[in-house]
Amino acid sequence: MALLVLKFGGTSVADLERIRAAAAHIKREIDQGNQCAVVVSAMGDQTDRLVSWTREAAPLHDAREYDVVVSTGEQVTCGLLSIILQDMGIPARSWLGWQLPVHTDDAHGAARIVDIETDQLKTRLKNGEVAVVPGFQGLGPDGRVTTLGRGGSDTSAVALAAALGADRCDIYTDVDGIYTGDPRIVPQARRLDKISYEEMLETASLGAKVLQTRSVQLAMVHQVRLLVRSSFEPADAQHEDGTQAGTLVCDEDEIVEQQVVSGIAYTKDEAKVTLIGVQDKPGVAARVFGPLADANINVDMIVQNVSGDGKTTDLTFTVSDADLDRALEVLKDVKAEIGYEDLRGATDIVKVSVIGIGMRSHAGVASQMFKAMADKGINIEAISTSEIKISVLIDAAYAELAVRTLHSLYGLDNA
Amino acid sequence: MALLVLKFGGTSVADLERIRAAAAHIKREIDQGNQCAVVVSAMGDQTDRLVSWTREAAPLHDAREYDVVVSTGEQVTCGLLSIILQDMGIPARSWLGWQLPVHTDDAHGAARIVDIETDQLKTRLKNGEVAVVPGFQGLGPDGRVTTLGRGGSDTSAVALAAALGADRCDIYTDVDGIYTGDPRIVPQARRLDKISYEEMLETASLGAKVLQTRSVQLAMVHQVRLLVRSSFEPADAQHEDGTQAGTLVCDEDEIVEQQVVSGIAYTKDEAKVTLIGVQDKPGVAARVFGPLADANINVDMIVQNVSGDGKTTDLTFTVSDADLDRALEVLKDVKAEIGYEDLRGATDIVKVSVIGIGMRSHAGVASQMFKAMADKGINIEAISTSEIKISVLIDAAYAELAVRTLHSLYGLDNA
Repeated sequence: MALLVLKFGGTSVADLERIRAAAAHIKREIDQGNQCAVVVSAMGDQTDRLVSWTREAAPLHDAREYDVVVSTGEQVTCGLLSIILQDMGIPARSWLGWQLPVHTDDAHGAARIVDIETDQLKTRLKNGEVAVVPGFQGLGPDGRVTTLGRGGSDTSAVALAAALGADRCDIYTDVDGIYTGDPRIVPQARRLDKISYEEMLETASLGAKVLQTRSVQLAMVHQVRLLVRSSFEPADAQHEDGTQAGTLVCDEDEIVEQQVVSGIAYTKDEAKVTLIGVQDKPGVAARVFGPLADANINVDMIVQNVSGDGKTTDLTFTVSDADLDRALEVLKDVKAEIGYEDLRGATDIVKVSVIGIGMRSHAGVASQMFKAMADKGINIEAISTSEIKISVLIDAAYAELAVRTLHSLYGLDNA
Repeated sequence: MALLVLKFGGTSVADLERIRAAAAHIKREIDQGNQCAVVVSAMGDQTDRLVSWTREAAPLHDAREYDVVVSTGEQVTCGLLSIILQDMGIPARSWLGWQLPVHTDDAHGAARIVDIETDQLKTRLKNGEVAVVPGFQGLGPDGRVTTLGRGGSDTSAVALAAALGADRCDIYTDVDGIYTGDPRIVPQARRLDKISYEEMLETASLGAKVLQTRSVQLAMVHQVRLLVRSSFEPADAQHEDGTQAGTLVCDEDEIVEQQVVSGIAYTKDEAKVTLIGVQDKPGVAARVFGPLADANINVDMIVQNVSGDGKTTDLTFTVSDADLDRALEVLKDVKAEIGYEDLRGATDIVKVSVIGIGMRSHAGVASQMFKAMADKGINIEAISTSEIKISVLIDAAYAELAVRTLHSLYGLDNA
């Protein structure tokens, strides 16, 4: 018998049929004697609809009223799932953010959970009642509804699992786990049984939409074991030879057979900015990146080429492609202060990353990577590394080739 | 300077354009120095959509979870209107049912308001802030969301006006007031400047959809003056020679020139049941109407004809046409107990009513009515009266003729 938090995202509760499928998964856990608290997202595109209404009402609007409007999406799912569970003979009730309450700070629209009161909930769960909690919402210190920012339902689930001391937090989504590579590009990609928090963090920050970065951080801090699994798999699916459904995101100590590289990720949401003929003197980096930081533009990889004459240099860096136009505007505005000859932006690039906690203890992962790229004639435009990740920026045309090459290089291909 | 409660129904907040129009009406009142608390319904058909989801989830469902789902409709409008008001430079904030709170009893899905806490609200209103309150919802003694049943937003507005001691409660809707007759049938119908609570009650219970019966009762008890007006009229419309917008529903003492008859109403939602050859002996009425009452079927007009032989009689009565099939079933089931020869049901009838508080002091209103009907060859199948109302049941084919005849008879036609 285990205490579980089950989280169902937007596609897993898109309509009443999908909510019924979610209820069947919950029923299976209850039938196995588990205690279940459930966190739900809004149905399908309801949140987008509500958000667009607030924008249409006024482009700049009171975040407190935005929260009043947008939090209703999860509330609706919450009531409907409770009704469906009851109809299946499972005692269930909804617990809205202000009812538990889920205490957050006062950053309306992007609040952080401070504390979740769970005394009542624990008693109910012990009595076999399912608690259905709307994700993404809480109660601010001002006594008003807060929302956690987009994707916040994962965070709600992890925070609730931490507060309850749950044995596991099952994240039901539209994919059946975390893969060694994007199966659309690498047909040989394998689903991982386990992945460490650190690896998952790198994967999430590289654009994998499966889990929100913040929820993984929270899970790591509180040591909440996350199981990423598909709500589209039948609730009564039998897994051959006892293999588990989904991928467990857990502490690395729980992963017995650690591989050097656990996966290859890539992201297309990158744009490259190049400043040509920048004066090569102290303080120039501050004059370039200061204004970008002021404009809230996040800079990722940075490469500075030493110039031939020693007086000017070329400076290349990447930003999110959504920020490219704004970044170019900012740099045009401060051209006089920086002093550069030319400014170029490009989006035909991708970032390909190799991720694995094994890298910490294995040398040579990077050099293998660079050699493989060179062998395929792929030019590396920039490199960035962390303890458990190596990312390279390359021409978008070579994205698939690079991902497949690296997937094979590190022995990730399916046997 | 006055303290006003403004209520905007579903068609008056159907979309963002309509919500903006509502905001313009609120702005006019604020600009005139009034304090405004606003009660809103859900946008257009949102409530129907939410209700149908709960039914689809499970035909028989927990009313507490129904309330969780359905109350979100008003919450959305509430946030959006607050955003739009703020955008127009008017300080505004939403106050959800659980935040004020609006205390109700525990009859989830059909709760009654017990008390509304208004201390905070009064302070805010005095400071020129508009309070936007979702209609139709409250907080039960169980600490959970309640809803007041369909059409409850009018009741919310009146209860809030009573709690605040408001000078007036303005009900914005899609008609511009209460008419002496249905303008679609009687082109000469006039809009009334004032109508008494009692008359409005009779009109509402006769199927006029403008105000909910319960909200009029509440207004009468608490002496809340209601102004029924159109949100579709431009906010800055000028009324010639100072005539007011809409119809004021108020105490009869406030109506200086009382007319004998204030209006002619009719309702098609009637069905007639006739039991032929019923044994004419004591206790038969109980045996007929007891089972109907047990089945929650409301019986309106009753006529019993004395039979020729003194042993059997025919019994005719009306029920709502929605209840007809059920009423016939119930009576078939107890045929042996009642002892009747034949049972007939018909829906081709209408109830036409003459309403006016002046009737109390004027004799002859009924006899005038019966004579006028006879002159037009209209057969009266049943009659029911109250202190301020006379209703007759007639063949549906004569509905328009009867309404126009009576409208003219009592001097209601436009000059």
